Amino acid sequence: MHGRPEGLRDRRCSKALDHTTVPGRPDKSCYDRAMATSGPKLAPGSVGTVETQFLDLPKPLRLDCGKDLHPVRIAYETYGTLTPARDNVILVCHALSGDAHAAGFSKTPPTESTRDGFGAEDRDGSRNKGLGWWDGMIGPGKSFDTDRYFVVSTNLLGGCRGTTGPSSVNPAAGRPYGSDFPVITVADMVRAERAFLDELGIERLSAVAGGSLGGMQAFEWAILFPDQVDAVVAIASTHALHTQGVAWNAIARSSIQSDPAWQGGHYYGTGTKPDAGMGVARMVGHITYLSAGSLGEKFGRRLQFSDDIRYTLTEPEFEVESYLRYQADSFVRRFDANTYLYTSRALTYFDLARQYGSGSLTNAFRDISARTLLIAFSSDWLYPPSGSEEIASALRALGKDVELHVIDAPYGHDCFLLEEARQTPLIRKFLNHL
Amino acid sequence: MHGRPEGLRDRRCSKALDHTTVPGRPDKSCYDRAMATSGPKLAPGSVGTVETQFLDLPKPLRLDCGKDLHPVRIAYETYGTLTPARDNVILVCHALSGDAHAAGFSKTPPTESTRDGFGAEDRDGSRNKGLGWWDGMIGPGKSFDTDRYFVVSTNLLGGCRGTTGPSSVNPAAGRPYGSDFPVITVADMVRAERAFLDELGIERLSAVAGGSLGGMQAFEWAILFPDQVDAVVAIASTHALHTQGVAWNAIARSSIQSDPAWQGGHYYGTGTKPDAGMGVARMVGHITYLSAGSLGEKFGRRLQFSDDIRYTLTEPEFEVESYLRYQADSFVRRFDANTYLYTSRALTYFDLARQYGSGSLTNAFRDISARTLLIAFSSDWLYPPSGSEEIASALRALGKDVELHVIDAPYGHDCFLLEEARQTPLIRKFLNHL
Repeated sequence: MHGRPEGLRDRRCSKALDHTTVPGRPDKSCYDRAMATSGPKLAPGSVGTVETQFLDLPKPLRLDCGKDLHPVRIAYETYGTLTPARDNVILVCHALSGDAHAAGFSKTPPTESTRDGFGAEDRDGSRNKGLGWWDGMIGPGKSFDTDRYFVVSTNLLGGCRGTTGPSSVNPAAGRPYGSDFPVITVADMVRAERAFLDELGIERLSAVAGGSLGGMQAFEWAILFPDQVDAVVAIASTHALHTQGVAWNAIARSSIQSDPAWQGGHYYGTGTKPDAGMGVARMVGHITYLSAGSLGEKFGRRLQFSDDIRYTLTEPEFEVESYLRYQADSFVRRFDANTYLYTSRALTYFDLARQYGSGSLTNAFRDISARTLLIAFSSDWLYPPSGSEEIASALRALGKDVELHVIDAPYGHDCFLLEEARQTPLIRKFLNHL
Repeated sequence: MHGRPEGLRDRRCSKALDHTTVPGRPDKSCYDRAMATSGPKLAPGSVGTVETQFLDLPKPLRLDCGKDLHPVRIAYETYGTLTPARDNVILVCHALSGDAHAAGFSKTPPTESTRDGFGAEDRDGSRNKGLGWWDGMIGPGKSFDTDRYFVVSTNLLGGCRGTTGPSSVNPAAGRPYGSDFPVITVADMVRAERAFLDELGIERLSAVAGGSLGGMQAFEWAILFPDQVDAVVAIASTHALHTQGVAWNAIARSSIQSDPAWQGGHYYGTGTKPDAGMGVARMVGHITYLSAGSLGEKFGRRLQFSDDIRYTLTEPEFEVESYLRYQADSFVRRFDANTYLYTSRALTYFDLARQYGSGSLTNAFRDISARTLLIAFSSDWLYPPSGSEEIASALRALGKDVELHVIDAPYGHDCFLLEEARQTPLIRKFLNHL
């Protein structure tokens, strides 16, 4: 079985989450305790050693598909200090394969918590196991400055890293949901985040920020709760995945679902899981997150073992072949295939114009009041700058406050995890104007 | 079992292939017979109704890996008339999933012979079952003008459409080779073509032409047999696949090989075959053959059945999802997974600078005497124009005769199968100067 079993979750900190007993600073006791333990030597600007916490929503969550989901547990981390007025909150939303551990060093064993929004720790070879997936962006003096803001990060609905998802136990069946988990949308993820923040006593957000699917969540926030979001920071994101992106996601899901080990989605407890299909899905995703140029720069056509080919059909010959296998192997060890399916489906469905504008993006944005910062990357062909440009254009047509920066950078979609130095001044300046 | 069983091959025409009895026009009797049968009404410029023929090489084929392959049967078709001097031959080489049926209408049942170099008949929706994969390019008055040239097309070594490949019977084992088939290279394919043409009494080629992997074969010809090739026509091809192309191929092979039904390559006769893995491989390939723009143009984000989503994890929702499934399903019915693996491996290995130039493309081209026509397409991101530009640059540095045309066209790699009208004047003019 994949995904951390419920029973293994650290419940010590959950006690500190009762916001009626620790109003305003729900994670402080955990944070202090974590900091008191001996951790690695942390770089300046680190939020320190952190621990993921868990909160159970008190009420069922009504989903877009019409079903109610209950119980719903949310895994989360917070960094920085909540003001007494609770007016300095930034919600950070993760991408397809991320989790609540966005910043700092986690004591959770590396296989359960890696620095990986999309797996950047694997892809850039730095293997910073234990560091949050956006550690370069969250901390004192960083983009999302924890000296000033109280940064909240949750594992998204349907996740496999602590938040309720297909690997969680379905109370009606007494076994994990598997494919009985309801099909969810990005809006459902955001409603779960809204309900979670209610429990923390947080009504208003200074900003919602995220890259890729994280940016999609930020837009949903601004549309669903227009009076509660001051700003959107959407990086390498879009208002709707383009056709090729829909296709890549369909291929990834096909790969998982056609693996016999998927067993119609009910593989938990069977001793097998769709690692083969999920590995191929991850390889496909992986290549789409990188630019052809950066991949060529990194690997070229270098052979794996010798100066000549070995005439093998089954073994990797090129370094890039070996690298892909490594990526697949490490991903299937830490991520649940059903979560991949549900999340991929949700981000494929996401389409602001269809959902809120009768086909018009301008209509969809009509009621938002948030200021918007868009950052896109020139080499990102999965979430190309054109998507951000369409958003900017629609917002400008409505007279809304929006700025768009297209950063010329070579690493493809992964730039949002790698190009911290160039994003930071843009984000800090934008947030300073709030 | 996939791939046409040996026993089903039409042997009637094989008799006509004995070049000692029908010197110079080895296929004429077959061709005449075929034309006499009632076929569909053929468009002007068609070569008419044709039938694939077969020839067994008299000697073992020595392969790059050091092994000898025997017996080797070659499936082929010819169009036009061989001059008594045998000096008007153009060899046409196909791409990954093509076959010997390059032009005209085939009487072979559609599931066994479709118009498809890369599956264009599926992709453009025209479903021209029975038409050769390059029918728009071969025929009277066309690019490869059968009023003037004797055009020969073979199924490549390792194929599953009549030429010996992994689905053929291994005489040493009395069962199909499966993964006991030796790992082959593009040079091996070309040596098989050379041996085949020897049997037809053809020594010299006016041109070798092909797109994609077909172009790779053309370059191998010009390097391996520099005195026997007057011209190379290489379309949407390269001197070595770039890193991302290597990665896509590795993903496709992984998908097939990780399907339990692959059974280590010995699935023939077991009643099952790796359709699931091969389907995913095909989907990946398919998307890489198209440009993101043309895919978007064709499908956008249109939903399959209604104006709204249906909250399904397993059923196609978007038209492009349904289209991909259809492509996968039709491909696995007609193509052998092991042939896909071997051919993909061969085209990944292909690297003229490594093979012949100690790392230098200029060195590799030093001895060729063929004139070269290169055509590339602006939107082809699998075989981008840069590959052709590097070839042109190396040839020019050597003072060789080369011309390169980059056609501004939107359909990605598939352009070589679709942009017939714009290729034709370039090719006719180039061949007229021979």
